[in-house]
Amino acid sequence: MNLLNIENPVFEVYVIAAAIMVLKIMLQGWMTVYRMLKIDGGYASPEDLQKGLINKEPNPEQLEVNDYVDRSRRMHRNDLENIPAFLVVGLLFVAVDPALWTAQSLMYGFVLVRFSHFAVYATKQTHEIRATFYTIGSLIVVYMAVHILWSVLM
Amino acid sequence: MNLLNIENPVFEVYVIAAAIMVLKIMLQGWMTVYRMLKIDGGYASPEDLQKGLINKEPNPEQLEVNDYVDRSRRMHRNDLENIPAFLVVGLLFVAVDPALWTAQSLMYGFVLVRFSHFAVYATKQTHEIRATFYTIGSLIVVYMAVHILWSVLM
Amino acid sequence: MNLLNIENPVFEVYVIAAAIMVLKIMLQGWMTVYRMLKIDGGYASPEDLQKGLINKEPNPEQLEVNDYVDRSRRMHRNDLENIPAFLVVGLLFVAVDPALWTAQSLMYGFVLVRFSHFAVYATKQTHEIRATFYTIGSLIVVYMAVHILWSVLM
Repeated sequence: MNLLNIENPVFEVYVIAAAIMVLKIMLQGWMTVYRMLKIDGGYASPEDLQKGLINKEPNPEQLEVNDYVDRSRRMHRNDLENIPAFLVVGLLFVAVDPALWTAQSLMYGFVLVRFSHFAVYATKQTHEIRATFYTIGSLIVVYMAVHILWSVLM
Repeated sequence: MNLLNIENPVFEVYVIAAAIMVLKIMLQGWMTVYRMLKIDGGYASPEDLQKGLINKEPNPEQLEVNDYVDRSRRMHRNDLENIPAFLVVGLLFVAVDPALWTAQSLMYGFVLVRFSHFAVYATKQTHEIRATFYTIGSLIVVYMAVHILWSVLM
Repeated sequence: MNLLNIENPVFEVYVIAAAIMVLKIMLQGWMTVYRMLKIDGGYASPEDLQKGLINKEPNPEQLEVNDYVDRSRRMHRNDLENIPAFLVVGLLFVAVDPALWTAQSLMYGFVLVRFSHFAVYATKQTHEIRATFYTIGSLIVVYMAVHILWSVLM
Protein backbone atom coordinates (compact mmCIF):
# COMPACT_ATOMS: atom_id res chain seq x y z
CA MET A 1 0.00 0.00 0.00
CA ASN A 2 1.53 3.28 -1.12
CA LEU A 3 -0.33 6.22 0.40
CA LEU A 4 2.22 8.97 -0.26
CA ASN A 5 1.15 9.16 -3.88
CA ILE A 6 -0.65 11.82 -5.82
CA GLU A 7 -3.30 9.27 -6.83
CA ASN A 8 -4.37 9.01 -3.19
CA PRO A 9 -7.02 11.76 -2.69
CA VAL A 10 -5.91 12.29 0.94
CA PHE A 11 -2.33 12.89 -0.19
CA GLU A 12 -3.63 15.33 -2.80
CA VAL A 13 -5.44 17.30 -0.07
CA TYR A 14 -2.20 17.39 1.91
CA VAL A 15 -0.16 18.51 -1.11
CA ILE A 16 -2.55 21.40 -1.81
CA ALA A 17 -2.66 22.56 1.83
CA ALA A 18 1.11 22.17 2.24
CA ALA A 19 1.98 24.08 -0.96
CA ILE A 20 -0.30 26.95 0.12
CA MET A 21 1.28 27.03 3.58
CA VAL A 22 4.79 27.09 2.05
CA LEU A 23 3.70 30.09 -0.04
CA LYS A 24 2.39 31.72 3.17
CA ILE A 25 5.80 31.39 4.86
CA MET A 26 7.59 32.87 1.83
CA LEU A 27 5.01 35.68 1.49
CA GLN A 28 5.74 36.74 5.06
CA GLY A 29 9.41 37.26 4.17
CA TRP A 30 8.35 39.51 1.28
CA MET A 31 5.98 41.44 3.53
CA THR A 32 8.96 42.25 5.79
CA VAL A 33 11.02 43.34 2.76
CA TYR A 34 8.12 45.48 1.48
CA ARG A 35 7.68 47.17 4.87
CA MET A 36 11.45 47.80 5.27
CA LEU A 37 11.60 49.44 1.84
CA LYS A 38 8.39 51.42 2.38
CA ILE A 39 9.49 53.08 5.62
CA ASP A 40 13.21 52.89 4.72
CA GLY A 41 14.06 51.45 8.13
CA GLY A 42 13.71 48.55 10.51
CA TYR A 43 16.96 47.08 9.17
CA ALA A 44 18.64 44.35 11.20
CA SER A 45 22.31 44.45 10.11
CA PRO A 46 24.81 47.31 10.57
CA GLU A 47 26.06 46.97 6.96
CA ASP A 48 22.54 47.86 5.75
CA LEU A 49 23.44 51.46 6.59
CA GLN A 50 25.75 51.55 3.56
CA LYS A 51 24.55 53.87 0.81
CA GLY A 52 23.24 51.95 -2.17
CA LEU A 53 20.23 51.14 -4.33
CA ILE A 54 18.19 49.98 -1.33
CA ASN A 55 19.29 52.68 1.10
CA LYS A 56 19.75 56.08 -0.52
CA GLU A 57 20.03 58.18 2.64
CA PRO A 58 21.64 56.12 5.43
CA ASN A 59 20.83 57.12 8.98
CA PRO A 60 21.64 55.24 12.22
CA GLU A 61 17.96 55.36 13.26
CA GLN A 62 17.22 52.89 10.44
CA LEU A 63 18.61 50.12 12.70
CA GLU A 64 16.10 50.80 15.47
CA VAL A 65 13.23 48.38 16.05
CA ASN A 66 10.17 49.65 14.17
CA ASP A 67 6.78 48.11 15.00
CA TYR A 68 5.56 48.26 11.37
CA VAL A 69 8.48 46.05 10.26
CA ASP A 70 8.82 44.09 13.49
CA ARG A 71 5.14 43.12 13.31
CA SER A 72 5.85 41.28 10.07
CA ARG A 73 8.86 39.58 11.70
CA ARG A 74 6.69 38.51 14.66
CA MET A 75 4.09 37.14 12.23
CA HIS A 76 6.90 35.25 10.51
CA ARG A 77 8.11 33.82 13.83
CA ASN A 78 4.57 32.74 14.64
CA ASP A 79 4.42 31.01 11.23
CA LEU A 80 7.70 29.21 11.95
CA GLU A 81 6.36 28.05 15.32
CA ASN A 82 3.31 26.48 13.70
CA ILE A 83 3.60 25.80 9.96
CA PRO A 84 6.67 23.49 9.73
CA ALA A 85 5.11 21.27 12.44
CA PHE A 86 1.89 21.17 10.39
CA LEU A 87 3.78 20.36 7.18
CA VAL A 88 5.40 17.30 8.76
CA VAL A 89 2.44 16.10 10.84
CA GLY A 90 0.20 16.41 7.76
CA LEU A 91 2.43 14.04 5.79
CA LEU A 92 2.45 11.51 8.65
CA PHE A 93 -1.32 11.86 8.92
CA VAL A 94 -1.65 10.76 5.29
CA ALA A 95 0.52 7.74 6.11
CA VAL A 96 -1.93 6.47 8.74
CA ASP A 97 -4.74 6.52 6.13
CA PRO A 98 -7.43 8.81 7.62
CA ALA A 99 -10.89 9.35 6.14
CA LEU A 100 -10.84 11.90 3.30
CA TRP A 101 -13.29 14.28 4.99
CA THR A 102 -11.22 14.24 8.19
CA ALA A 103 -8.11 15.21 6.25
CA GLN A 104 -10.00 17.89 4.32
CA SER A 105 -11.53 19.41 7.46
CA LEU A 106 -8.27 19.49 9.41
CA MET A 107 -5.91 20.53 6.64
CA TYR A 108 -8.08 23.11 4.85
CA GLY A 109 -9.21 24.25 8.31
CA PHE A 110 -5.57 24.85 9.27
CA VAL A 111 -4.99 26.87 6.08
CA LEU A 112 -8.06 29.00 6.82
CA VAL A 113 -7.17 29.76 10.45
CA ARG A 114 -3.57 30.63 9.55
CA PHE A 115 -4.74 33.13 6.93
CA SER A 116 -7.23 34.48 9.47
CA HIS A 117 -4.39 34.80 12.01
CA PHE A 118 -2.41 36.70 9.37
CA ALA A 119 -5.26 39.14 8.70
CA VAL A 120 -5.94 39.66 12.42
CA TYR A 121 -2.26 40.22 13.28
CA ALA A 122 -1.63 42.56 10.33
CA THR A 123 -4.63 44.74 11.22
CA LYS A 124 -3.81 44.80 14.96
CA GLN A 125 -7.03 43.20 16.17
CA THR A 126 -7.29 42.37 19.88
CA HIS A 127 -5.19 39.71 21.57
CA GLU A 128 -8.37 37.67 22.17
CA ILE A 129 -9.19 37.36 18.43
CA ARG A 130 -5.58 36.59 17.48
CA ALA A 131 -5.32 34.01 20.28
CA THR A 132 -8.49 32.29 19.06
CA PHE A 133 -7.10 31.62 15.58
CA TYR A 134 -3.72 30.60 17.03
CA THR A 135 -5.49 28.16 19.33
CA ILE A 136 -7.56 26.50 16.61
CA GLY A 137 -4.48 26.03 14.40
CA SER A 138 -2.45 24.68 17.29
CA LEU A 139 -5.18 22.24 18.33
CA ILE A 140 -5.45 20.92 14.75
CA VAL A 141 -1.72 20.09 14.76
CA VAL A 142 -1.95 18.56 18.26
CA TYR A 143 -4.99 16.49 17.23
CA MET A 144 -3.20 15.15 14.15
CA ALA A 145 -0.11 14.18 16.18
CA VAL A 146 -2.22 12.39 18.81
CA HIS A 147 -4.31 10.65 16.11
CA ILE A 148 -1.07 9.41 14.51
CA LEU A 149 0.33 8.09 17.80
CA TRP A 150 -3.01 6.42 18.56
CA SER A 151 -3.12 4.75 15.12
CA VAL A 152 0.43 3.45 15.40
CA LEU A 153 0.55 2.46 19.06
CA MET A 154 -2.97 1.10 19.73
CA MET B 1 10.37 -1.15 -2.65
CA ASN B 2 8.21 1.22 -0.65
CA LEU B 3 9.88 2.17 2.62
CA LEU B 4 7.73 5.19 3.55
CA ASN B 5 4.95 2.93 4.72
CA ILE B 6 3.55 2.21 8.14
CA GLU B 7 4.20 -1.52 7.61
CA ASN B 8 7.95 -0.80 7.57
CA PRO B 9 9.08 -0.98 11.25
CA VAL B 10 11.74 1.71 10.67
CA PHE B 11 9.09 4.10 9.30
CA GLU B 12 6.94 3.32 12.33
CA VAL B 13 9.81 4.32 14.65
CA TYR B 14 10.17 7.56 12.69
CA VAL B 15 6.43 8.28 12.84
CA ILE B 16 6.36 7.83 16.62
CA ALA B 17 9.45 9.99 17.22
CA ALA B 18 8.26 12.66 14.76
CA ALA B 19 4.73 12.90 16.22
CA ILE B 20 6.19 13.29 19.73
CA MET B 21 8.58 16.01 18.53
CA VAL B 22 5.71 17.86 16.80
CA LEU B 23 3.83 17.78 20.12
CA LYS B 24 6.98 19.14 21.83
CA ILE B 25 7.06 22.15 19.47
CA MET B 26 3.36 22.89 20.05
CA LEU B 27 3.70 22.42 23.82
CA GLN B 28 6.40 25.10 23.89
CA GLY B 29 3.95 27.61 22.39
CA TRP B 30 1.46 26.79 25.13
CA MET B 31 4.14 27.14 27.79
CA THR B 32 4.75 30.71 26.55
CA VAL B 33 1.00 31.41 26.65
CA TYR B 34 0.75 29.94 30.18
CA ARG B 35 3.66 32.05 31.43
CA MET B 36 2.31 35.26 29.81
CA LEU B 37 -1.07 34.73 31.45
CA LYS B 38 0.45 33.75 34.82
CA ILE B 39 2.59 36.87 35.20
CA ASP B 40 0.22 39.01 33.10
CA GLY B 41 3.13 40.37 31.04
CA GLY B 42 5.89 39.59 28.55
CA TYR B 43 3.53 40.53 25.72
CA ALA B 44 5.06 41.16 22.29
CA SER B 45 2.51 43.34 20.46
CA PRO B 46 1.38 46.88 21.39
CA GLU B 47 -2.30 45.97 20.84
CA ASP B 48 -2.02 43.40 23.65
CA LEU B 49 -2.26 46.38 26.03
CA GLN B 50 -5.95 46.73 25.17
CA LYS B 51 -8.26 45.94 28.06
CA GLY B 52 -10.03 42.63 27.55
CA LEU B 53 -10.54 39.08 28.77
CA ILE B 54 -6.80 38.33 28.61
CA ASN B 55 -5.55 41.64 29.95
CA LYS B 56 -7.75 43.08 32.69
CA GLU B 57 -5.40 45.83 33.92
CA PRO B 58 -3.29 47.10 31.02
CA ASN B 59 0.07 48.64 31.89
CA PRO B 60 2.91 49.65 29.50
CA GLU B 61 5.39 47.53 31.52
CA GLN B 62 3.60 44.43 30.23
CA LEU B 63 5.46 44.92 26.91
CA GLU B 64 8.90 44.73 28.55
CA VAL B 65 11.02 41.63 28.07
CA ASN B 66 10.45 39.30 31.02
CA ASP B 67 12.89 36.42 31.55
CA TYR B 68 10.17 34.02 32.75
CA VAL B 69 8.30 34.41 29.43
CA ASP B 70 11.35 35.02 27.27
CA ARG B 71 12.93 31.79 28.53
CA SER B 72 10.04 29.86 27.00
CA ARG B 73 10.49 31.82 23.74
CA ARG B 74 14.23 30.99 23.72
CA MET B 75 13.39 27.32 24.32
CA HIS B 76 10.98 27.56 21.38
CA ARG B 77 13.65 29.12 19.16
CA ASN B 78 16.07 26.34 20.14
CA ASP B 79 13.38 23.80 19.19
CA LEU B 80 12.91 25.48 15.81
CA GLU B 81 16.68 25.40 15.20
CA ASN B 82 16.80 21.65 15.80
CA ILE B 83 13.47 19.83 15.49
CA PRO B 84 12.33 20.66 11.92
CA ALA B 85 15.77 19.56 10.64
CA PHE B 86 15.34 16.30 12.58
CA LEU B 87 11.82 15.78 11.23
CA VAL B 88 13.04 15.97 7.62
CA VAL B 89 16.34 14.14 8.04
CA GLY B 90 14.52 11.35 9.88
CA LEU B 91 12.22 10.78 6.91
CA LEU B 92 15.16 10.69 4.49
CA PHE B 93 16.95 8.31 6.86
CA VAL B 94 14.03 5.87 6.55
CA ALA B 95 14.33 6.14 2.75
CA VAL B 96 17.94 4.87 2.77
CA ASP B 97 16.82 1.74 4.66
CA PRO B 98 18.91 1.73 7.88
CA ALA B 99 18.97 -1.11 10.42
CA LEU B 100 16.00 -0.96 12.81
CA TRP B 101 18.16 -0.68 15.95
CA THR B 102 20.14 2.20 14.40
CA ALA B 103 16.92 4.09 13.70
CA GLN B 104 15.57 3.34 17.18
CA SER B 105 18.78 4.46 18.92
CA LEU B 106 19.10 7.70 16.95
CA MET B 107 15.43 8.71 16.82
CA TYR B 108 14.36 7.77 20.35
CA GLY B 109 17.74 9.11 21.51
CA PHE B 110 16.92 12.47 19.89
CA VAL B 111 13.52 12.55 21.59
CA LEU B 112 15.15 11.85 24.97
CA VAL B 113 17.85 14.50 24.68
CA ARG B 114 15.36 17.15 23.50
CA PHE B 115 13.12 16.51 26.52
CA SER B 116 16.23 16.60 28.72
CA HIS B 117 17.22 19.91 27.11
CA PHE B 118 13.70 21.18 27.88
CA ALA B 119 13.94 20.17 31.55
CA VAL B 120 17.43 21.63 31.94
CA TYR B 121 16.53 24.93 30.25
CA ALA B 122 13.25 25.34 32.17
CA THR B 123 14.97 24.78 35.52
CA LYS B 124 17.94 27.07 34.70
CA GLN B 125 20.66 24.42 35.04
CA THR B 126 24.21 25.42 34.07
CA HIS B 127 25.25 26.24 30.52
CA GLU B 128 27.48 23.13 30.53
CA ILE B 129 24.57 20.73 31.16
CA ARG B 130 22.31 22.47 28.63
CA ALA B 131 25.11 22.50 26.04
CA THR B 132 25.66 18.76 26.52
CA PHE B 133 22.08 17.86 25.59
CA TYR B 134 22.08 20.36 22.71
CA THR B 135 25.30 18.79 21.42
CA ILE B 136 24.05 15.20 21.51
CA GLY B 137 20.84 16.16 19.66
CA SER B 138 22.75 18.17 17.09
CA LEU B 139 25.25 15.36 16.48
CA ILE B 140 22.40 12.86 15.95
CA VAL B 141 20.96 15.08 13.20
CA VAL B 142 24.40 15.64 11.65
CA TYR B 143 25.15 11.90 11.76
CA MET B 144 21.86 11.07 10.02
CA ALA B 145 22.50 13.66 7.27
CA VAL B 146 26.04 12.35 6.67
CA HIS B 147 24.83 8.73 6.70
CA ILE B 148 22.21 9.65 4.06
CA LEU B 149 24.76 11.40 1.81
CA TRP B 150 27.15 8.45 2.20
CA SER B 151 24.40 5.93 1.28
CA VAL B 152 23.35 7.87 -1.79
CA LEU B 153 26.72 9.04 -3.11
CA MET B 154 29.04 6.08 -2.35
CA MET C 1 3.80 4.50 -9.03
CA ASN C 2 6.10 5.11 -6.08
CA LEU C 3 8.16 8.25 -6.63
CA LEU C 4 9.41 8.78 -3.05
CA ASN C 5 12.00 6.08 -3.50
CA ILE C 6 15.76 6.22 -3.71
CA GLU C 7 15.63 4.43 -7.09
CA ASN C 8 13.86 7.48 -8.56
CA PRO C 9 16.69 9.81 -9.76
CA VAL C 10 14.57 12.91 -8.95
CA PHE C 11 14.10 11.71 -5.37
CA GLU C 12 17.85 11.09 -5.16
CA VAL C 13 18.52 14.71 -6.20
CA TYR C 14 16.09 15.86 -3.49
CA VAL C 15 17.69 13.65 -0.84
CA ILE C 16 21.17 15.03 -1.61
CA ALA C 17 20.02 18.68 -1.61
CA ALA C 18 17.91 18.18 1.54
CA ALA C 19 20.67 16.43 3.52
CA ILE C 20 23.10 19.25 2.64
CA MET C 21 20.55 21.89 3.69
CA VAL C 22 19.95 20.08 7.01
CA LEU C 23 23.72 20.17 7.61
CA LYS C 24 23.66 23.91 6.79
CA ILE C 25 21.03 24.56 9.49
CA MET C 26 23.00 22.59 12.08
CA LEU C 27 26.29 24.25 11.07
CA GLN C 28 24.75 27.65 11.79
CA GLY C 29 24.05 26.59 15.39
CA TRP C 30 27.70 25.59 15.77
CA MET C 31 28.86 28.89 14.28
CA THR C 32 26.89 30.70 17.01
CA VAL C 33 28.48 28.46 19.67
CA TYR C 34 31.97 29.04 18.20
CA ARG C 35 31.48 32.82 18.18
CA MET C 36 30.09 32.87 21.76
CA LEU C 37 33.10 30.91 23.01
CA LYS C 38 35.59 32.95 20.98
CA ILE C 39 34.49 36.34 22.30
CA ASP C 40 33.28 34.87 25.63
CA GLY C 41 29.98 36.77 25.37
CA GLY C 42 26.73 37.19 23.49
CA TYR C 43 25.07 34.77 25.89
CA ALA C 44 21.26 34.68 25.95
CA SER C 45 20.35 33.22 29.38
CA PRO C 46 21.07 34.74 32.81
CA GLU C 47 22.30 31.39 34.18
CA ASP C 48 25.12 31.45 31.58
CA LEU C 49 26.85 33.96 33.89
CA GLN C 50 27.60 31.13 36.32
CA LYS C 51 31.30 30.34 36.61
CA GLY C 52 32.16 27.06 34.94
CA LEU C 53 34.05 25.30 32.15
CA ILE C 54 32.41 27.49 29.47
CA ASN C 55 32.51 30.79 31.36
CA LYS C 56 35.67 31.22 33.46
CA GLU C 57 35.29 34.92 34.27
CA PRO C 58 31.59 35.83 34.50
CA ASN C 59 30.67 39.44 33.78
CA PRO C 60 27.18 40.95 33.32
CA GLU C 61 28.27 42.46 29.97
CA GLN C 62 28.39 38.93 28.54
CA LEU C 63 24.56 39.04 28.30
CA GLU C 64 24.57 42.13 26.06
CA VAL C 65 23.75 41.76 22.37
CA ASN C 66 27.01 41.41 20.42
CA ASP C 67 26.89 41.81 16.64
CA TYR C 68 29.53 39.11 16.04
CA VAL C 69 27.33 36.51 17.77
CA ASP C 70 23.99 38.06 16.83
CA ARG C 71 24.98 38.00 13.14
CA SER C 72 25.17 34.20 13.33
CA ARG C 73 21.76 34.14 15.07
CA ARG C 74 20.28 36.35 12.32
CA MET C 75 21.77 34.03 9.68
CA HIS C 76 20.17 31.13 11.54
CA ARG C 77 16.78 32.89 11.60
CA ASN C 78 17.08 33.55 7.87
CA ASP C 79 17.80 29.84 7.36
CA LEU C 80 14.72 28.91 9.40
CA GLU C 81 12.58 31.29 7.32
CA ASN C 82 13.69 29.60 4.09
CA ILE C 83 15.14 26.10 4.46
CA PRO C 84 12.32 24.16 6.20
CA ALA C 85 9.90 25.45 3.52
CA PHE C 86 12.34 24.23 0.84
CA LEU C 87 12.73 20.84 2.53
CA VAL C 88 8.98 20.21 2.42
CA VAL C 89 8.23 21.76 -0.97
CA GLY C 90 11.12 19.76 -2.47
CA LEU C 91 9.57 16.49 -1.31
CA LEU C 92 6.17 17.47 -2.74
CA PHE C 93 7.88 18.50 -5.97
CA VAL C 94 9.25 14.96 -6.34
CA ALA C 95 5.71 13.64 -5.84
CA VAL C 96 4.38 15.53 -8.89
CA ASP C 97 7.07 13.87 -11.06
CA PRO C 98 9.03 16.79 -12.60
CA ALA C 99 11.73 16.42 -15.27
CA LEU C 100 15.10 15.45 -13.77
CA TRP C 101 16.91 18.54 -15.09
CA THR C 102 14.22 20.82 -13.64
CA ALA C 103 14.66 19.24 -10.20
CA GLN C 104 18.46 19.41 -10.48
CA SER C 105 18.46 23.08 -11.52
CA LEU C 106 16.03 24.19 -8.82
CA MET C 107 17.31 22.07 -5.93
CA TYR C 108 21.06 22.36 -6.51
CA GLY C 109 20.44 26.02 -7.41
CA PHE C 110 18.77 26.53 -4.02
CA VAL C 111 21.73 24.90 -2.25
CA LEU C 112 24.17 27.18 -4.11
CA VAL C 113 22.31 30.43 -3.39
CA ARG C 114 21.90 29.57 0.29
CA PHE C 115 25.64 28.95 0.66
CA SER C 116 26.26 32.20 -1.23
CA HIS C 117 23.85 33.99 1.13
CA PHE C 118 25.82 32.50 4.05
CA ALA C 119 29.16 33.76 2.66
CA VAL C 120 27.76 37.22 1.88
CA TYR C 121 26.11 37.62 5.30
CA ALA C 122 29.14 36.34 7.24
CA THR C 123 31.50 38.75 5.43
CA LYS C 124 29.12 41.74 5.77
CA GLN C 125 28.68 42.40 2.05
CA THR C 126 26.14 45.05 1.02
CA HIS C 127 22.40 44.67 1.52
CA GLU C 128 21.98 44.58 -2.29
CA ILE C 129 24.19 41.48 -2.74
CA ARG C 130 22.62 39.69 0.24
CA ALA C 131 19.11 40.54 -0.99
CA THR C 132 19.92 39.13 -4.45
CA PHE C 133 20.77 35.66 -3.10
CA TYR C 134 17.79 35.74 -0.71
CA THR C 135 15.52 36.62 -3.63
CA ILE C 136 16.74 33.82 -5.90
CA GLY C 137 16.33 31.23 -3.13
CA SER C 138 12.88 32.55 -2.23
CA LEU C 139 11.73 32.53 -5.87
CA ILE C 140 12.89 28.91 -6.28
CA VAL C 141 10.70 27.85 -3.34
CA VAL C 142 7.76 29.93 -4.62
CA TYR C 143 8.15 28.48 -8.12
CA MET C 144 8.14 24.92 -6.78
CA ALA C 145 5.00 25.55 -4.69
CA VAL C 146 3.16 27.10 -7.66
CA HIS C 147 4.30 24.27 -9.98
CA ILE C 148 2.93 21.74 -7.47
CA LEU C 149 -0.44 23.50 -7.19
CA TRP C 150 -0.64 23.77 -10.98
CA SER C 151 0.13 20.04 -11.42
CA VAL C 152 -2.45 18.99 -8.88
CA LEU C 153 -5.27 21.44 -9.64
CA MET C 154 -5.09 21.81 -13.46
